[in-house]
Amino acid sequence: MTPGSTNWPDHGGRRAALLARFGLPADHPLIDFSANLNPLGPPAWLSDWLSGAADRLAAYPNPDDETPARAIAERDGVLPEQVLVTNGGAEAIYLAAALHAGGRVLVIEPTFSEYRLACAHYGLSVESLRLRGESFELDVDAAERAMAGTTRPAALLFLCRPNNPTGTMVAAETIERLLARGLETGTTLVVDEAFIDFSDEQALTPLLAGASNLLLLRSLTKLYDLPGLRLGYMLGSPSLVQGARDLQMPWSVNALALGLVAPLLADADYLSRTRTWLAGVRPGVPDAVRALGYRVPATQANFMLLDGRGAAEAEALFAFLLRRGLLARHTHNFAGLDGRWLRLALRDSSDNACLLEALAAWRQA
Amino acid sequence: MTPGSTNWPDHGGRRAALLARFGLPADHPLIDFSANLNPLGPPAWLSDWLSGAADRLAAYPNPDDETPARAIAERDGVLPEQVLVTNGGAEAIYLAAALHAGGRVLVIEPTFSEYRLACAHYGLSVESLRLRGESFELDVDAAERAMAGTTRPAALLFLCRPNNPTGTMVAAETIERLLARGLETGTTLVVDEAFIDFSDEQALTPLLAGASNLLLLRSLTKLYDLPGLRLGYMLGSPSLVQGARDLQMPWSVNALALGLVAPLLADADYLSRTRTWLAGVRPGVPDAVRALGYRVPATQANFMLLDGRGAAEAEALFAFLLRRGLLARHTHNFAGLDGRWLRLALRDSSDNACLLEALAAWRQA
Repeated sequence: MTPGSTNWPDHGGRRAALLARFGLPADHPLIDFSANLNPLGPPAWLSDWLSGAADRLAAYPNPDDETPARAIAERDGVLPEQVLVTNGGAEAIYLAAALHAGGRVLVIEPTFSEYRLACAHYGLSVESLRLRGESFELDVDAAERAMAGTTRPAALLFLCRPNNPTGTMVAAETIERLLARGLETGTTLVVDEAFIDFSDEQALTPLLAGASNLLLLRSLTKLYDLPGLRLGYMLGSPSLVQGARDLQMPWSVNALALGLVAPLLADADYLSRTRTWLAGVRPGVPDAVRALGYRVPATQANFMLLDGRGAAEAEALFAFLLRRGLLARHTHNFAGLDGRWLRLALRDSSDNACLLEALAAWRQA
Repeated sequence: MTPGSTNWPDHGGRRAALLARFGLPADHPLIDFSANLNPLGPPAWLSDWLSGAADRLAAYPNPDDETPARAIAERDGVLPEQVLVTNGGAEAIYLAAALHAGGRVLVIEPTFSEYRLACAHYGLSVESLRLRGESFELDVDAAERAMAGTTRPAALLFLCRPNNPTGTMVAAETIERLLARGLETGTTLVVDEAFIDFSDEQALTPLLAGASNLLLLRSLTKLYDLPGLRLGYMLGSPSLVQGARDLQMPWSVNALALGLVAPLLADADYLSRTRTWLAGVRPGVPDAVRALGYRVPATQANFMLLDGRGAAEAEALFAFLLRRGLLARHTHNFAGLDGRWLRLALRDSSDNACLLEALAAWRQA
């Protein structure tokens, strides 16, 4: 296998393709550090709930059922008409792009590659704004200039907070400054808060009251470890959200996802156990990795980015981890990282110990 | 309540809005003749399957898992690369439109309103071709002329077979003629076969071998009474299907839908019971309705269209049925029908008897 930037699958977690690329058998045992999911697993009551859910599948998802939006609105302190439930966070991204079809969009990178793809899908012209330096900082002045543009202002600005894959946070005060500028330039800020439930910092929900040009994108399936369910949502002003609702494909969210919103949000015990787990792994695990001599930016997410010190070196570490049964996330499809870094999820203590042991061994090799 | 064409909900089956419109309480008991689903209900093994499916939700839907496409390919006699599983039939419609974004499209109407909406979503310019006369016949010469166009040919032609809401079938020979013309004009034919499993006539699958400009859209959730699951698919040439795959949102089909494809298709007993049910209700029920003096076009679907002889008369009949607990489908959002007809599903024998009794009573009223 020749190291290099080619033949990497376009998303993480594609085990078969990755194992084949490194000449490992398809049944090679793997601990998945490539997906950013809650290691607690789905709530224990889910199997019982599912066993009684067949009847829910025998009817079309009911667009008039306000229960899911009300449950979200109550939890987040917004109005139900500020909530649109979506087919995973991905559909929320596509709808944000669709609302601004044909416009000019800024994407703050490196970040989740879907923003670019969704914008391309709707014919937006994408410009990249790169986070700077070792701590991936946003150049706010440059962002403001780019929003105004030289010929036409940006219709849209995508950023992710905490950011995938760096784990870093743009400060809330910076978002407020960008929102104010956006009101002048006619720019909607789309802040993807898919990982905010794993952060110690507050969500931007309180800003919605004063900002008509803010869309917040959320995922419920990362927190509850249910990515197969496809359940996300969008928050914004009633008029922005109505615009997205008008563009949403009919029945795009399945009936089980809709039915699970309220019981998931009501499971306070699961949230509390998640907080306990987080306190045990962050900042502890990133600190331990740094103590081994690796560079890891400060993370507010349930994952960390590790500097591989070059693409060939990062690939060698990726392969070393893979042979030991640890699946990292390559960064070949994150603009500006180009494979020189690896992203690693925070998992339970025994998995994290395996990772630390492997990273220590790599240092000594 | 003033009769008229206003204030009709945009889709059928929105009970709350319809009951409110007619001043009936929200808990008014209703038999739903407005949705075209299999009255057998979901397969009996589904609850057991769901109770063991929680683990499937704990991973992202795997884009590399070829099991669903292979199961469909085997059943339908095509190659797996000719199959794209979609988030319900609706996503298949949207992807067919997305493949031809900005083009000119012909929609053969009256038909399912989603074709127009999906085309509008992707900026296609929509032209309507009306089915003619009492039997809703396609004017093939007019269709061929419209495909060629006066200034630019049509990129796309949407038709539904059997057609929703008329239940009528365009002959396979006509489709072959349109496909041949489409090869000359550069027009892709999208034939929505969402209800073909309920028809006595053959699907168009064999035509795929010779037609690079044919897309067939299918639903699995009408047949198996699982519309809440969201599961459809598209069949076409490998290159057309690859084009649609490239435009598909990541993880758009949930993991339970993907996991159910193979077991659903393997349930031969369910299909056989469906055939037995169909033989008992068609043409018997439409014939019995005609014998009461109503006009009903020949139907090859699991529903029938009933001529209300005018919009006010149709609305009065709709209200009469609703008060008796029978929910019909209004036709206000079917171009060319404009509320003058009602669509009624074929259900089990006791429900059908209620409907026939009510329609007889209306005749005598």
